[in-house]
Amino acid sequence: MKITILTLFPEMFTGVFQQSILKQAQEKGLVNYNVVNFRDYTNDKHKRVDDYPYGGGGGMILTPQPLFDAVAAVKSESENDSSPRVILMCPQGERYHQKKAEELSKEDHLILICGHYEGYDERVRKHLATEEISIGDYVLTGGEIGAMVIADSVTRLLPGALGNEMSAVTDSYSTGLLEYPHYTRPAAFLDYKVPDILLSGHHERIDRWRRQQALKRTFERRPDLLEQVELTAEDKAFLEDLRNR
Amino acid sequence: MKITILTLFPEMFTGVFQQSILKQAQEKGLVNYNVVNFRDYTNDKHKRVDDYPYGGGGGMILTPQPLFDAVAAVKSESENDSSPRVILMCPQGERYHQKKAEELSKEDHLILICGHYEGYDERVRKHLATEEISIGDYVLTGGEIGAMVIADSVTRLLPGALGNEMSAVTDSYSTGLLEYPHYTRPAAFLDYKVPDILLSGHHERIDRWRRQQALKRTFERRPDLLEQVELTAEDKAFLEDLRNR
Repeated sequence: MKITILTLFPEMFTGVFQQSILKQAQEKGLVNYNVVNFRDYTNDKHKRVDDYPYGGGGGMILTPQPLFDAVAAVKSESENDSSPRVILMCPQGERYHQKKAEELSKEDHLILICGHYEGYDERVRKHLATEEISIGDYVLTGGEIGAMVIADSVTRLLPGALGNEMSAVTDSYSTGLLEYPHYTRPAAFLDYKVPDILLSGHHERIDRWRRQQALKRTFERRPDLLEQVELTAEDKAFLEDLRNR
Repeated sequence: MKITILTLFPEMFTGVFQQSILKQAQEKGLVNYNVVNFRDYTNDKHKRVDDYPYGGGGGMILTPQPLFDAVAAVKSESENDSSPRVILMCPQGERYHQKKAEELSKEDHLILICGHYEGYDERVRKHLATEEISIGDYVLTGGEIGAMVIADSVTRLLPGALGNEMSAVTDSYSTGLLEYPHYTRPAAFLDYKVPDILLSGHHERIDRWRRQQALKRTFERRPDLLEQVELTAEDKAFLEDLRNR
């Protein structure tokens, strides 16, 4: 898989791509990150990539030419796929979620476009991007951190990307519930003790306790998630009990 | 303002904090980012910071001691504020949004704790953190990118952080609507032209067009946002018209 990032601030990505899972995924040959400064593609003699908006108002707007040319160059260099998805990082986009990460992880090549405080010329949105993604309802100075979110969430789904150390903890997300509480040594830290049940050795009871804790936390914090989860009769009775308290 | 980040991967932050607005905000003395490796605070002779979960199951769990001691050290070094907010980055947390960014931007000191594929011992959650934040419904390999989201979104709200270049484009978010389309030169790019209205010079009509485009985009993509926006009678008539089409 190849992930190409078009940005005016390529140096922002060095730290993230050279650490931990993302670094290892590259070393294993699972993914190739290609960070491209689209300023290199501008035809402007002063290397400008933005200009004032038509119709007035403040703020600068990214001109279409450097982005269209950068995407064309990236596509022409790509061997295995002539039609990569071209994703615009922007607050107006579809809200990113885990199902989208799973969908994107099946692609050969993603191109992520990061604006940086400037707005995009509408023609980039309409005629260059295949889709628009927002990572959440908050304002960032640019699309770069959003592109890191996509690169990270997609990479960790590639088969072989995660070592054994990660297995269960993060995979518990896949139950659709929030995680149950975890405890590790020491059994007593300051005045705070590990629940007796976890020290009991009764695996069946421990499993039931964990399931109920996950249900309880999800019920308290994100009841919307419960609608999409397959619940057993026992789960339902437990939730009914919580509701009646 | 001071933002302290506790992480096992401090190098992930170098790129982001040394570019653009975040770099400038530090140079202007508006914010001080302090990235701390909490492995430095472990009492374990092998420098370990995680251990197996009580009750069995896969995945490693961050032990409480290094995090409790790192937070205590950071608090004792802090001059101006003895009770900073201690924020745990995790998928179970409150979903981050712009109002939270505004709230956090008024604090003197934030401490952000980043787990990295390991789970947190529940005692960190209950007795050390003052709150838990999630940046969205997707799984990342660690809390580091989430901490970048908070640092970026909070920093750009500090008075003086943004130069003139950013004013209107991002501030349009504050209307509560998605942005209207932006266009800049050239007036015709490939076959794609700028709408005539924007070249007309009629500022009143341009303003109305932009407002309607913002309403239309919000209606089509994020109708939930419309409920929180103050609408004029003209806005309501326009939306009513859209609904009837």
